[in-house]
Amino acid sequence: MIRPAPLVEAIEPMTPFIGPEELMRETGRSSLVRLGANESAFGPSPRAVTAMAAELERLAWYGDPESYELREALARKHGCRVEEVLVGAGIDDLMGLAVRAFVAPGAAALTTRGSYPTLNYHVNGYGGRLVYAHYRTDGRLDLDELVTVATRERAALIYLANPDNPSGTFVDRNEMQRFFEAMPHDVVFLLDEAYADFVDESSLLPMHVEDRLIRTRTFSKAYGLAGARIGYAITTERVIGILQKIRLHYGVNRNAQIGALASLSDEPFRRHVVESVAQAREDYYALGRELGLGSIESFTNFVCIDLGDPSRATAVMNALLRDHGVWIRKPGLPPLDRYVRVSAGTPPMREAFAAAFRDVVSAVPSLHA
Amino acid sequence: MIRPAPLVEAIEPMTPFIGPEELMRETGRSSLVRLGANESAFGPSPRAVTAMAAELERLAWYGDPESYELREALARKHGCRVEEVLVGAGIDDLMGLAVRAFVAPGAAALTTRGSYPTLNYHVNGYGGRLVYAHYRTDGRLDLDELVTVATRERAALIYLANPDNPSGTFVDRNEMQRFFEAMPHDVVFLLDEAYADFVDESSLLPMHVEDRLIRTRTFSKAYGLAGARIGYAITTERVIGILQKIRLHYGVNRNAQIGALASLSDEPFRRHVVESVAQAREDYYALGRELGLGSIESFTNFVCIDLGDPSRATAVMNALLRDHGVWIRKPGLPPLDRYVRVSAGTPPMREAFAAAFRDVVSAVPSLHA
Repeated sequence: MIRPAPLVEAIEPMTPFIGPEELMRETGRSSLVRLGANESAFGPSPRAVTAMAAELERLAWYGDPESYELREALARKHGCRVEEVLVGAGIDDLMGLAVRAFVAPGAAALTTRGSYPTLNYHVNGYGGRLVYAHYRTDGRLDLDELVTVATRERAALIYLANPDNPSGTFVDRNEMQRFFEAMPHDVVFLLDEAYADFVDESSLLPMHVEDRLIRTRTFSKAYGLAGARIGYAITTERVIGILQKIRLHYGVNRNAQIGALASLSDEPFRRHVVESVAQAREDYYALGRELGLGSIESFTNFVCIDLGDPSRATAVMNALLRDHGVWIRKPGLPPLDRYVRVSAGTPPMREAFAAAFRDVVSAVPSLHA
Repeated sequence: MIRPAPLVEAIEPMTPFIGPEELMRETGRSSLVRLGANESAFGPSPRAVTAMAAELERLAWYGDPESYELREALARKHGCRVEEVLVGAGIDDLMGLAVRAFVAPGAAALTTRGSYPTLNYHVNGYGGRLVYAHYRTDGRLDLDELVTVATRERAALIYLANPDNPSGTFVDRNEMQRFFEAMPHDVVFLLDEAYADFVDESSLLPMHVEDRLIRTRTFSKAYGLAGARIGYAITTERVIGILQKIRLHYGVNRNAQIGALASLSDEPFRRHVVESVAQAREDYYALGRELGLGSIESFTNFVCIDLGDPSRATAVMNALLRDHGVWIRKPGLPPLDRYVRVSAGTPPMREAFAAAFRDVVSAVPSLHA
């Protein structure tokens, strides 16, 4: 009889997300309007597609385990050194490394209750102790409570996504700088900037490196390469040296490196995506207003629309999938659980969503109506 | 001042492999004859390339986190259930999961000294205790010693690659079955079958599932998709349930799943690769004989050629890179460290290697000459 390691045996099974393919299998549908995972509806850059197509024959070669060319380009983009950039198989991968490196079994990792659940998955998986701050009722992060809890619980790591997922809210440069200074200085601040491409770089915490700051970015959102699994972390050479000791050296797909590098050279495409996403957000706000529903102002490629109560939000989400093949998600915990979260689609996807949403919202009454 | 978790702090830095891109940067070469990493010189299946090319635009979508279609095809191929197949980002990824799940800090993991070093990397990384059996002087695995050491050290996991890397030797079905029965039954047997496609399925341990057996396979070798990072494990639903608790659910590239699925349908291509590889091995044996050098009979897509002593083997490997841009590797530890290991190339690559090898071998004298 074999037995798992005690730490692994103790983990409660948890699937961070159910994928749309599973939902298609369950509902017997052969396609969905995919607005549930904040994938880019605008696809990868044509330049990235061309570059990857040209290299498919060479997929028999392992990718460069150092992702050197890509890291050079990223260092240029961010004005840091190549030794301060680490490439991984998406932010989820890098997040796992940061948790494994800095959250010893029993140590506290602090996040906002209801924020990106993959952080929780990793903390659970490495035997850390999850501690929480709460969203403010307006869907914004509570930076004061984060500092209070970090101090009280002697947190080893604080996680925060900015812009935030699933709320879409944003903490600007000055507020973020005050927060970073106010937190205990022996804490690793894991700053997930997956959605940073949708705001101005000048409104973000200025790019600099220090040991207690690990910021992560991705090619999954504005660059439209979610399926490629590629992202990066920026921090000090010392911290990267620690992550180097545990990372999967051959974990990143060769073509993902090539696509990411080509994407970086296509700034007009990224701007086009950012503008298209901004228009999609406006359309979703307007749709909400038309139906008497508020939205949280978003700084990302998705919008949270307020259905008034959690059960109605769940019923709307389920009816959209079941009756219309429109796949969205919703936050699972208060105070955000009365919202549905819709990713920015192309104009035809938005029309399909709007028609289905009007239909479903009118059919699912509010508890408070 | 931030501090890593004690277990991570204690890890000695170790890079399992230096990639050819790094060697190109160091030597200032813009290309190499790549015969060092047992990549397939015969590329991916044209069917896989076509399938992946058609889906590049949809790389904005995350891949199915369950890899369901691929697992279905693999279950059909191997006559097992879909719940008994787990897809990961290459065997390295799956190996990390198996070690994390079954080798608690301080527990013993047994391998053959000088065999595939990524296993050692993971055991190190999760705080396990590496214990070793030794290769026999003929380059074969010592199954008796593996059983003795596993019993004495109360190993939690035994790792073995069959066919073996870097020796290329093979343990056939009957011998493997005796070994599997002789080892303590509370040990997880991690059977790495990365090179299984180069031998007849009928000569391998029969396909069956039980908790104490995790076998891994890959699309990196015969299927020519090393850069895609995709492999799979076959074991019981119970063991997969344990690995599910810790795996990176969105870790596999979407296009890798598509390429792997298409590859499975192209059995003529795989046979063509296997035959081409067999011819390459014959060419390498013949080249060795011409130069008075023995080779280990190989059941893989590489051959170990005997240079007589470790320093000569190292000098030959280095001269091939430096003077000819021919990249090979060599085993690092006795008794295999007097060999160089050459991957099966295309006929032009073999010619380039042969010309360079003749030149270098005659220029680097044997210590015993």
